[in-house]
Amino acid sequence: MSTQPITTVAIQGERGAFSHAAAIQIVGPSVRIVACRTFEDVFRAVASGDADVGIVPVENTLAGAVQRPMDLLASRDVLAVAETRVPIRLCLATPPETRLEDIETVASHPVALEQCLRFFDAHPAIQPHAVYDTAGSIRDLMAGGADYQAAIGSELAAELYGARILQRALEDDPANYTRFLAVTQDGEVMDPDRPKTSLAFTVPHVPGSLHRALGCFAEEAVDLARLESRPIPGHPWEYRFFADLRGSNGAAHDRAIAALEAVSGNVRIIGRYEEVPEGDS
Amino acid sequence: MSTQPITTVAIQGERGAFSHAAAIQIVGPSVRIVACRTFEDVFRAVASGDADVGIVPVENTLAGAVQRPMDLLASRDVLAVAETRVPIRLCLATPPETRLEDIETVASHPVALEQCLRFFDAHPAIQPHAVYDTAGSIRDLMAGGADYQAAIGSELAAELYGARILQRALEDDPANYTRFLAVTQDGEVMDPDRPKTSLAFTVPHVPGSLHRALGCFAEEAVDLARLESRPIPGHPWEYRFFADLRGSNGAAHDRAIAALEAVSGNVRIIGRYEEVPEGDS
Repeated sequence: MSTQPITTVAIQGERGAFSHAAAIQIVGPSVRIVACRTFEDVFRAVASGDADVGIVPVENTLAGAVQRPMDLLASRDVLAVAETRVPIRLCLATPPETRLEDIETVASHPVALEQCLRFFDAHPAIQPHAVYDTAGSIRDLMAGGADYQAAIGSELAAELYGARILQRALEDDPANYTRFLAVTQDGEVMDPDRPKTSLAFTVPHVPGSLHRALGCFAEEAVDLARLESRPIPGHPWEYRFFADLRGSNGAAHDRAIAALEAVSGNVRIIGRYEEVPEGDS
Repeated sequence: MSTQPITTVAIQGERGAFSHAAAIQIVGPSVRIVACRTFEDVFRAVASGDADVGIVPVENTLAGAVQRPMDLLASRDVLAVAETRVPIRLCLATPPETRLEDIETVASHPVALEQCLRFFDAHPAIQPHAVYDTAGSIRDLMAGGADYQAAIGSELAAELYGARILQRALEDDPANYTRFLAVTQDGEVMDPDRPKTSLAFTVPHVPGSLHRALGCFAEEAVDLARLESRPIPGHPWEYRFFADLRGSNGAAHDRAIAALEAVSGNVRIIGRYEEVPEGDS
């Protein structure tokens, strides 16, 4: 997609969010961000054509599945065309003149604050303050009038809003990555040789049914990179499974899916895609 | 456990939380609640003997897995001894003299507020206000000095804090249940004939390994009531699986687990238990 002059990308959250960093990794620097309040709005922007691409987080290596986008991927008529993994590096951003000793309160999203406990332990005089999102906390700080003196967010957000990075690597655990999927209205070219396939399926309520379903993948020596389950709204204690297939080849994925359709009434392809590595564009 | 005069139960959140309702369902009315700030504190209270029992949510039929308690169940030396399912019925609680037209702001936990969108659509003049927890919002309202006129929480919380229930069934979706597990230090009598077994396991990184693991359950005609995956902290893109086995009998569960141990290096029994139905004590 890097050959297009400008690509419009819908994300949940503000410019400078980690979804924006994912957009740059997948689409390249010529990206125009459509900042959406909810994940529903992201999918709506893609389905309506207001955005060329939507980029949503699907899992984090510490927190696990990002639940709402998973449900929307299974129910909306969009298709995943790329994935990327973004390291979650958290910075302490301040206005240029602020010194560490001036800081009484630091704002960020509650999840980001919880991932920086060592920083707050090391600076007991500094109070955390929960706000709507990470990038927004830096934007509001730099717009002036905020009731906090620093904010925690991405390096990208600090750059975008003109903040100074007073300290880097605030995150307690560096093995902190979020995986994002890029979705489009038509799945663009669903190249059968892209190495990864995501799908959602249900299985009948009888012993061994999930085992039989996974047998379709094992039979083709397709690697199950991930299996998630999510409740089906309105059907308590029933679950939809999300599988990521990897390896072997597209034809093997297709045969596995055809076999799965014979044991599951309800298979939906979420996308076939390849990974865009960090820093690639 | 209802024969004991008073049982001390640790829960995350305040008295009147849905975890408190789960405690009454499992233990009976003679329960003394130890209100904990975090799920870690709940497990710590049980391990130290400060509480006889800990009760934690593990899944909700709309939101899915409750992630932190799952991780703690797999890593802590406590054992699940009972489960129960609590219907999430949300009430509009106010001081006795408050009328609907007096209400400008309603406080509750963000998840509860999001599950009452119809109420806010029907009353556009009323603003939602996010606070730390549902029961706490009612307690603080009744203590006086809160900057909101009503709060959304359980009937139990309204009763405990002397609030009036101005409206019931505020929740948009009545198919809203949370499943709770009760844990104790020693697993009490781990009766082999209790009909449900929860366990956590990992599988090697080779195609077909999860299929082989589930084959251990299928072989014994044990029903897999639920399968969840969670990331393993510090090991990006590796997962621990959580399985709930049901049906057949305890001996079949034991044989399935022994077979699983041969294909997985890492099996941990979370508990063997039976369901305590709603209203039973």
